[in-house]
Amino acid sequence: MKKIEHIGIAVKDLDVSCSLYEKLLGTSCYKKEEVPSEGVSTAFFKTGENKIELLAAISEDSPIGKFLERKGEGIHHIAFDVDDIEEEMKRLRLEGFILLNEQPKLGADNKLVCFVHPKGTNGVLIELCQEVR
Amino acid sequence: MKKIEHIGIAVKDLDVSCSLYEKLLGTSCYKKEEVPSEGVSTAFFKTGENKIELLAAISEDSPIGKFLERKGEGIHHIAFDVDDIEEEMKRLRLEGFILLNEQPKLGADNKLVCFVHPKGTNGVLIELCQEVR
Repeated sequence: MKKIEHIGIAVKDLDVSCSLYEKLLGTSCYKKEEVPSEGVSTAFFKTGENKIELLAAISEDSPIGKFLERKGEGIHHIAFDVDDIEEEMKRLRLEGFILLNEQPKLGADNKLVCFVHPKGTNGVLIELCQEVR
Repeated sequence: MKKIEHIGIAVKDLDVSCSLYEKLLGTSCYKKEEVPSEGVSTAFFKTGENKIELLAAISEDSPIGKFLERKGEGIHHIAFDVDDIEEEMKRLRLEGFILLNEQPKLGADNKLVCFVHPKGTNGVLIELCQEVR
């Protein structure tokens, strides 16, 4: 775990929330990207060495769609930058954490990602992400 | 809003969660601090230029105690570092955000803090914090 890469926030309407977060952070959204495999549409902001990622559902039965239905808008996950995602997955498995995917998968922003089950982390959904080299 | 200063995570048992987050982050807790005025006990970790702050309730009727009862363990707030908290509070008020305290108050970690109502920020409790000079 090198550092926090981004914080993911689930929102209902990406455009409305983009304007809101531009006002809040005092900076412009620098990238929007759809990840059809996850059923999600994303918008990114830079703040210091971190990013804020807004996540809106493309379909209601996507993970973000289900999260919004169950919990409403709010913080969805914290993503940590790692050098070697397979090595970090191995380390966390040995420490007793439960991983939500067996293999790294391709996420937004050119990253290989893996999620850690919130049941083992005090209710916090953790994402590991490694830049695709 | 200069950068993310820390992410606050509400937990039931500070010592148990300290051990858990030491394993997760691969780093040691560097400070524990009680803030009696907020009814909270805190533990801090460094990760990159940010901190993770674990928050446990000292009393059930404290803000964290109520949060734990209502929502359970999980991410409680995102705190942003600001140069001039009064100036930033003024800017956010003018943008239409609702502030939860009229004046900056003293929080943990030698900071002046102010919270922004999550109703106006897609369900995310935002804290502004400025180092006490």
